[in-house]
Amino acid sequence: MPDLSLPEKLIRWRRDFHRHPELGFCEYRTAARVAATLEALGWGVTAGREVMDPAVRMELPPAAEIAAARAEALRDDADPAWVARFEDGLTGVVGTLDSGRPGPVLAFRVDLDALPVVESDDGAAHAPAREGFASIHSGRMHACGHDGHTAIGLGLATVLPALAPKLRGKIKLIFQPAEEGCRGAGSMVAAGVLDDVDHYVATHLGISAQQTGLVACGVDGFLATTKLDGHFTGVAAHAGVAPHEGRNALLAAATATVQLHAIARHGAGASRVNVGLLSGGAARNIVADRATLKLEVRGATSAINAWMTVEAGRILRASAELHGVQVRVENMGSAGSAICDTALKAAVRRAAARVPGIAQVADTLPMGGSEDATLMMEAVQARGGEATYVLVGTPLPAGHHHPRFDIDEAALSLAVDLHATLAQELLGGTVDPGRLPPQKQ
Amino acid sequence: MPDLSLPEKLIRWRRDFHRHPELGFCEYRTAARVAATLEALGWGVTAGREVMDPAVRMELPPAAEIAAARAEALRDDADPAWVARFEDGLTGVVGTLDSGRPGPVLAFRVDLDALPVVESDDGAAHAPAREGFASIHSGRMHACGHDGHTAIGLGLATVLPALAPKLRGKIKLIFQPAEEGCRGAGSMVAAGVLDDVDHYVATHLGISAQQTGLVACGVDGFLATTKLDGHFTGVAAHAGVAPHEGRNALLAAATATVQLHAIARHGAGASRVNVGLLSGGAARNIVADRATLKLEVRGATSAINAWMTVEAGRILRASAELHGVQVRVENMGSAGSAICDTALKAAVRRAAARVPGIAQVADTLPMGGSEDATLMMEAVQARGGEATYVLVGTPLPAGHHHPRFDIDEAALSLAVDLHATLAQELLGGTVDPGRLPPQKQ
Amino acid sequence: MPDLSLPEKLIRWRRDFHRHPELGFCEYRTAARVAATLEALGWGVTAGREVMDPAVRMELPPAAEIAAARAEALRDDADPAWVARFEDGLTGVVGTLDSGRPGPVLAFRVDLDALPVVESDDGAAHAPAREGFASIHSGRMHACGHDGHTAIGLGLATVLPALAPKLRGKIKLIFQPAEEGCRGAGSMVAAGVLDDVDHYVATHLGISAQQTGLVACGVDGFLATTKLDGHFTGVAAHAGVAPHEGRNALLAAATATVQLHAIARHGAGASRVNVGLLSGGAARNIVADRATLKLEVRGATSAINAWMTVEAGRILRASAELHGVQVRVENMGSAGSAICDTALKAAVRRAAARVPGIAQVADTLPMGGSEDATLMMEAVQARGGEATYVLVGTPLPAGHHHPRFDIDEAALSLAVDLHATLAQELLGGTVDPGRLPPQKQ
Amino acid sequence: MPDLSLPEKLIRWRRDFHRHPELGFCEYRTAARVAATLEALGWGVTAGREVMDPAVRMELPPAAEIAAARAEALRDDADPAWVARFEDGLTGVVGTLDSGRPGPVLAFRVDLDALPVVESDDGAAHAPAREGFASIHSGRMHACGHDGHTAIGLGLATVLPALAPKLRGKIKLIFQPAEEGCRGAGSMVAAGVLDDVDHYVATHLGISAQQTGLVACGVDGFLATTKLDGHFTGVAAHAGVAPHEGRNALLAAATATVQLHAIARHGAGASRVNVGLLSGGAARNIVADRATLKLEVRGATSAINAWMTVEAGRILRASAELHGVQVRVENMGSAGSAICDTALKAAVRRAAARVPGIAQVADTLPMGGSEDATLMMEAVQARGGEATYVLVGTPLPAGHHHPRFDIDEAALSLAVDLHATLAQELLGGTVDPGRLPPQKQ
Repeated sequence: MPDLSLPEKLIRWRRDFHRHPELGFCEYRTAARVAATLEALGWGVTAGREVMDPAVRMELPPAAEIAAARAEALRDDADPAWVARFEDGLTGVVGTLDSGRPGPVLAFRVDLDALPVVESDDGAAHAPAREGFASIHSGRMHACGHDGHTAIGLGLATVLPALAPKLRGKIKLIFQPAEEGCRGAGSMVAAGVLDDVDHYVATHLGISAQQTGLVACGVDGFLATTKLDGHFTGVAAHAGVAPHEGRNALLAAATATVQLHAIARHGAGASRVNVGLLSGGAARNIVADRATLKLEVRGATSAINAWMTVEAGRILRASAELHGVQVRVENMGSAGSAICDTALKAAVRRAAARVPGIAQVADTLPMGGSEDATLMMEAVQARGGEATYVLVGTPLPAGHHHPRFDIDEAALSLAVDLHATLAQELLGGTVDPGRLPPQKQ
Repeated sequence: MPDLSLPEKLIRWRRDFHRHPELGFCEYRTAARVAATLEALGWGVTAGREVMDPAVRMELPPAAEIAAARAEALRDDADPAWVARFEDGLTGVVGTLDSGRPGPVLAFRVDLDALPVVESDDGAAHAPAREGFASIHSGRMHACGHDGHTAIGLGLATVLPALAPKLRGKIKLIFQPAEEGCRGAGSMVAAGVLDDVDHYVATHLGISAQQTGLVACGVDGFLATTKLDGHFTGVAAHAGVAPHEGRNALLAAATATVQLHAIARHGAGASRVNVGLLSGGAARNIVADRATLKLEVRGATSAINAWMTVEAGRILRASAELHGVQVRVENMGSAGSAICDTALKAAVRRAAARVPGIAQVADTLPMGGSEDATLMMEAVQARGGEATYVLVGTPLPAGHHHPRFDIDEAALSLAVDLHATLAQELLGGTVDPGRLPPQKQ
Repeated sequence: MPDLSLPEKLIRWRRDFHRHPELGFCEYRTAARVAATLEALGWGVTAGREVMDPAVRMELPPAAEIAAARAEALRDDADPAWVARFEDGLTGVVGTLDSGRPGPVLAFRVDLDALPVVESDDGAAHAPAREGFASIHSGRMHACGHDGHTAIGLGLATVLPALAPKLRGKIKLIFQPAEEGCRGAGSMVAAGVLDDVDHYVATHLGISAQQTGLVACGVDGFLATTKLDGHFTGVAAHAGVAPHEGRNALLAAATATVQLHAIARHGAGASRVNVGLLSGGAARNIVADRATLKLEVRGATSAINAWMTVEAGRILRASAELHGVQVRVENMGSAGSAICDTALKAAVRRAAARVPGIAQVADTLPMGGSEDATLMMEAVQARGGEATYVLVGTPLPAGHHHPRFDIDEAALSLAVDLHATLAQELLGGTVDPGRLPPQKQ
Repeated sequence: MPDLSLPEKLIRWRRDFHRHPELGFCEYRTAARVAATLEALGWGVTAGREVMDPAVRMELPPAAEIAAARAEALRDDADPAWVARFEDGLTGVVGTLDSGRPGPVLAFRVDLDALPVVESDDGAAHAPAREGFASIHSGRMHACGHDGHTAIGLGLATVLPALAPKLRGKIKLIFQPAEEGCRGAGSMVAAGVLDDVDHYVATHLGISAQQTGLVACGVDGFLATTKLDGHFTGVAAHAGVAPHEGRNALLAAATATVQLHAIARHGAGASRVNVGLLSGGAARNIVADRATLKLEVRGATSAINAWMTVEAGRILRASAELHGVQVRVENMGSAGSAICDTALKAAVRRAAARVPGIAQVADTLPMGGSEDATLMMEAVQARGGEATYVLVGTPLPAGHHHPRFDIDEAALSLAVDLHATLAQELLGGTVDPGRLPPQKQ
C-alpha cells in the first residue's frame, strides 16, 4: 500500500482484520500479515516458539480446531512460510527495532484475537455491515477493538524506523494472541519476551475513554482473575429403575454453581464470581455421570482474587464429595491486578500534549475488568521497570463484546502519533537525565 | 426371501434393522420396509397421517434432522413412495387383516425406534460386532430390542394370513415410532388407531424375563411418567463490570435442578425425579442468559405422577422467579400406569401352553420402568376392551440401553408362535362363549 | 384397688397415667407405680441399671431436665425407694413370673413415655378434658396410647399369676421407656433383657386397627429408621465489616438441609428423609458460627435405611466442608424393619378366636412408621426365637400425636384377655408339640 | 455529685451505665437518669411519646420483655415518674437549651442501648471486671461504648448552660434508644425531633479512631442497610407416613438462606448480605410448618442497598413459592448512607484545634458499618441543614461487640470539651457571616 497515507493504511489494515476475525491461538492469518509486514519494514521478527512457551498456554482449543483455523488462514491467503512458524497455535509475533545506541528497551503491546460473537448485519446501525467489512466468518467478530489494536501496531511499525536514528535503546512491538479469557500473555512472559523491557505500554481503544481525542495515561481498577473449569464424573444409572445406583454428577455441578455464587463478599474490596457455562448429562432418564462448569473469580487485589480462588476450589471439591462423585479442577487462565507507574503516566501525558488532535488527557480512568497485560506489567515491574496501560478514546455505538461494537477509525492515527511521540519522550537523545527511566543492568 | 424358513427370515429382518437403527420419528427406512412387506403379504396398510396425529407428537426432532433421516433412508434403499407417505416424521404404520367374519378386533403392537447409544465394537463380547450386523450409523443403536420387536411384527404378518380363514373379527399390527421417551403412542391414540380394538397386546423382549422359553402374561410396576423441558431466559451482563445487571438463567436452572431432586417422597408409593440434562450459558465471563433442563418425573400410580408433575412445574417457575428470569415449561412426553387385564393374561397363558419351546409361564413380572404402550392400554380399557403387556424371555448379555445389549434370536420365533396362537385363542371359531372377550358395539 | 373389677382397674390406671404424662427417660412416676404394683402382685422386679445399659440410650435429655422430672415425680407421690432405683433416667422396669416348670420364655412389651404435645382442652370434642383426666402438665400428653399400653401391662400383671400353675416356662413383662424417637429399646437389648426370650409380643393400640374388637396378629411396613443430629461450628465475623473472615455454620446447615432432601430415591423400596428442626446463628449482623440440625432417615428395609444413613452422613460432612466449617454427627436413635413370624401370628389368631368381644382378626395390617420394638424383635429372632407386633383395635377421634388423640377404653380389657389367652396358647401344658416354638438351649 | 470534677463525674456516670446495661427500647433506668439529670441542670426535657413515634419503631421486643425491663429499672432505683413517661418502650429523651437569641439550632446525638453480649469476667484482661463495674446483668453488656456516649451527653448537659449567655440559637441533646440494629433513630425522626435542626453532630468513641487525642471530623463508608425478617408458614405432616402432605417451611427457609447469599455482587460498589439467624421446625419426625429467618443487606450507597433489598424480598417470596408455603416479610430496621458535610467538618476541625489534649485531627476516617444516625443526618440535610459524624479516639483492648471491649475514660472529657467548643464555634456571637450555617426560616 505504498501510495496510501498512514491514516488510510490504518483503516485498510483494521478493516481487513475486521473481516477476518480469528479466535485465540488461531490467529494464523492475522499473525502472518503482521510478521510479513514487520519484516518488509525492516524489523527483526521473532515468532511462534521463540516468543511463546507452549506449555503455559491456558485453555488451548482442541487440536482439530487449531488445524482448521490454520487451513482457513491458508485459504485466505496467509503466507505459508509464516503460518508454518506458528506451529500448533503459537501465534505470537514480536518485532524489534534497535537504535544501535545504548539505552532502555521500550515495549508496546497489542493483541490479535477476536470473540465468538455473531456480528450484527444491520447496516442502518452498524458501519461494518453498511460499508462491507463485517466479519466473513459467522460466529466470530472483532467486538473488542483488537482489529484496531493490531492496526495501531502496524502503524507504529511503519513510522518508528524513520525516528530510530534520533533514539537510544530498542523498541519492541509485541503482538499477543488470546487476550480474551486472559490466556495468552502468560505464555509470552514465560518465554522471556519481557525480560529486557524497561518501559512497557499496553494500549486499548475505548473502555472508559469514550470520545475521540481523549487519552488516559493509565488505568486503575484492574480486577485480578482466575479462570477455572470443573469436570465432574459420577456413575450413570437408570433413573426409573435404580436411581440409588447412580452418582449424580449434574447435581454436584448444579450444587457447586449455586454455592459458588454464595461465596462471602470480601470486606477488603470488590470480588466477583461467575459460573458462565454448565453442561451435563446424557439423557433425560439417566442419572447424569458427567458435567462441566466453566467459571471465573475476580478480586480488586491479587490477594482477594487468591482468596476467591481458594474458596472456589474447596466448593468444587466439596460439591463433588456431597454427591459422591469425582471432580477435576483445571486452571484455565489468570490475570493480576497491576498498578500503572506514575513516572510512565507522566511521560504519556507529556507525549499527549505534543499530539495535535488529543484534546483531553486523564491521568487515570477506571478499567473495571480483567486483562492479562497485567501479567506482563508485573513481570516488567518485578525487574525494576515501569509499566502503564493507555486508553485511547473512541465513541462506542455499543459496548465491548456487543454485536454492534464499533470504533471511530480516527482514533487509530491519534494512537500511532501518541505512541510514536512517547517513544521519542522515552528514548529521545535530548531527554534530560531527571526524566530518564531506570536503566537495566 | 421366499426360500427361507420363518426363523431364518426373522433373523434376517432383525439383523437388517439392527444395522440400520433410526431414532424416534426418523424411522423412514424401517417403516418403509414394514409397509412394503405388509402390502406384499396382503395386509391393508395405513400409514403416516392416517395413523398419527401430527399435533400431539412429543419432543419432535428439528425439521432438519428429520429431513436428514429421510435422505439417509432413501440412500439406504427405502422405497421412495412409502417414504413420501410418512411426510415430516409421521413414521407409524398399521396393517389390518379382516377375517370377513364378525368378531372382536385384536391388536398387536411393536415399536420401531433405536437409541442414541454408541454400539460396542468388541467382537469378543458383542455378537453383532462379531457377526457383522452392528449399527452402521455411529451413535445410534438398537439397544432395547425394538429391532427384534419389528421383526416379530413382520413374522406375524407372514403367518397370520394363513390362519385367517379359521378366525373371526380383525387383526391389527401396530408399528409405533418413538417409544423411547414415551413420545409416539399418544399420537396414534389421538389418530384413533385404538378406537375399535377389543384386545390389545404389547410385546417386549427381555426386561425381567431373562431366559429363552420364559413368558410373562403381563407385567406390573409400570411407572407413570411425565417428561418436561424447562427453558430459562434471563439477561446477559459482563460478569466483571456489571454482574448486577444480569439476570442469571443458569443459576435459576441449577437451583431448579437441586430443588427438583428435593421434592418430598410420596407416602402412597414410589416416585421418581431426574434432571438428566442441563446446559446453559454462553461464556465464562458473561452472566448466563439462557439455560435448558430436561427432566422426568415418575410415579407408581398416575395420581402420584400427576402430583410430581405439579410439584415440578411449580419448582421450575419459582426457581425462575427466584432469579428474576423467565421460564417456559414444555411437556415432552408421558405414559400412564396401566394394569394388565386378568382375562387377557389367562388367554396368553393358554396360548403359551400350546407353544413348544415355551417352558415357563409367569402370570406377572415386574416392569419397573415407563412405557407409552400404557397410553394405548388405557385407551382400550376406557372403551371396555382388555389389554396386556407380554414379556418374551431372552438372556441379556448386558442390560437394556447398554452398548453391548443383545438378544437370543431364538426368542423371535417363540414370540411369533405365541402371538399367532393367542390370535387363535381369542379369535378362533371354536372358543367357548365364556371365554369371549367383551364385544364392541 | 381391691374392690374394683379388672376393666375398672384398667381405666383407673390408664387415666392416672394420662393425667401424669412423662417424657422419655423421665418416666419416674409411671415406672415407680409399675414397679410397686408388680412387686405387690408377686412378680420378680428388676429395674434401672439391671435392665438398661446407660451408655446406649439415645438423645438423653439434659441432666437438669431429668432431675426436674425426678423431683416432679416425688412431688406427685412416686415411691422414693423406686425412684432411687431409676438413677439418672434409667426408667425401665421388667417383671418376671416363673411357672417353676421348664419351658419357653414369653415376653410382653409395653412402653411408658408421653409426647411433647399440648393436650386439647376442648371438653366437647375430647373426653379426657370433659371427664377431668387430661394432662396436668401443660406441653406433655399421652397422645400415642402408651398410657393404655402401660395399663394393659399392669392388667397382665394382675391376671397372669392365677394362670401360672397351669403354664410352663416364664413370662416377662417389659415396660420400656422412651419409645418416641426410637430411643429406649436399644438400651434394654444391650442390657440383655431379651437374651432368654423365645416368644416376643409387642402391642399397640390403634395404628391401622381402628375399631374395637379388631385385632391384627402382626404388622408389616415397619420403616427402619436412623435419627441423626448435626452440630455445625464455624467462625463468627461482623457481617458488614469482614464477612470473609467468617466461616458460616448456618449456611452449611441450610445447604445440608436442602441437599439431604435431595438424596436419590431408592429403587428397591420406600425411603424417607426429614430435617425436622434447624436452628442457628447468634445475631442478624454476625456471620453465624453455630447451627444444629435434627433429622431422620427411613427405609422400607434395614438395608435401604442403612444406605440412607450413609448418604446423610456424607452430605452433612460435605456441607460442612463446602463452607469450611466443622460438623459433629450424632446418632440419636434407630429402629429396624422387622418381620412378624408366621407361627407366632398363628398363635395370636388362635388366642383371639377364644376371646369374646374380638370380632375380627387380621393376619397383618400396615404399620407405616417406625418403632424400636423392632430392635427387640430382631434380637429375639437372631437367637432363634419368634416375634410379632400385635395391634389391638380402637376407634381414633384423632390420629396418633394429635392434641385430641383418644382411645376406646373397652379395648384395654380385650387386650389383656387376648394376651393372657396367648400366654396359655404358648405356655399351656396341653399344647401339642407341633405347635411348640423353638426351644432355647 | 456536687463536689466532683467533670472528668470524675463522667467516669462515675459511665461506670454506672456500664454496670446497668439495658437493651434497645428497654433503657428505662438509663433514660430516667438522663432525664432527671437534664431537668436538674435546667434543661427543657421532652421524652417518650413527645420525641418518638411509637408506630415506626423497628423490631420492638415483646411486651413482656419491655415490662420486665421496666420492673427491673424500678428495682434498680429508676425514678418512677420518669419511667412512667417512657410508657411501653418509648425510652428516648431530648434536652433543650435556648439561648434566648435568634440563631441556628445545634443538635448533639448520643445513644443509650447495650448489647446482648456476655461480658468478660477476666479481671486480668478486662478493667470493668477488675475494677468492679462490670455488668450486673449477665448476657447484657455495653460493648459498643454507648455508656460513654451517654456520659458525654450528660457532660455536655453540665457545661453548656454556663456558656449559653454567650451563644445564639438553641442546643438540643438527643439521647436515642435502640441504635443497635438501626431500630430507634427512625422513630425520633418521625416524631419531628430533627425538624428544626440546622447543625447535627453524632458522636462515637473508637471505631477507626483508636488512640486517645485523635479526632475525626467526619466519617465515610457508611453502609446503608435494611434488616428483614422472613416468617415462613407451611403445613405439618408425619415425615414417615405422609411426607407429601406436608408443605415444608424449613426447606423454604434453608433455600432462601443459600440463595440470599448468592445475590449477585453489585458492579457499582460494595454490597453485603447475611442471614444471621434461622430457626424452624417442631420435631425431628414432622415436616416443619414454621421457620423464621433474620437477615440484613447492606450497600455502599442507598441505591445499592435498595437494590439488595428488592433482591432479598423477591428471593424470600420465591423460596416460599418454590416449596408451596407462605412467607411474611417484615422490615425490622434500616439506615442510610449519609455523607458528612464539608463546612461542618471544618467547624469541628477549628474546635478541635482549640482543645488541649487533642493531638491529631483527621478530616475523615472510615466507618465501615451501619448506623441509624444516618437517618437523622439525611433528615437534617434534606431541610438544608448540615450534619457530620465525629469519632473521638480511644485505644480498644478488643473490638466493638467483643466481651472485652473497653475504652480509655480519658476520652470522655476530651469529647465534652470538643463538643462544647464546637457549640461556641457554631453558635458563638462573634462568628463571621461567611461561616454561618444555612438559617432555617
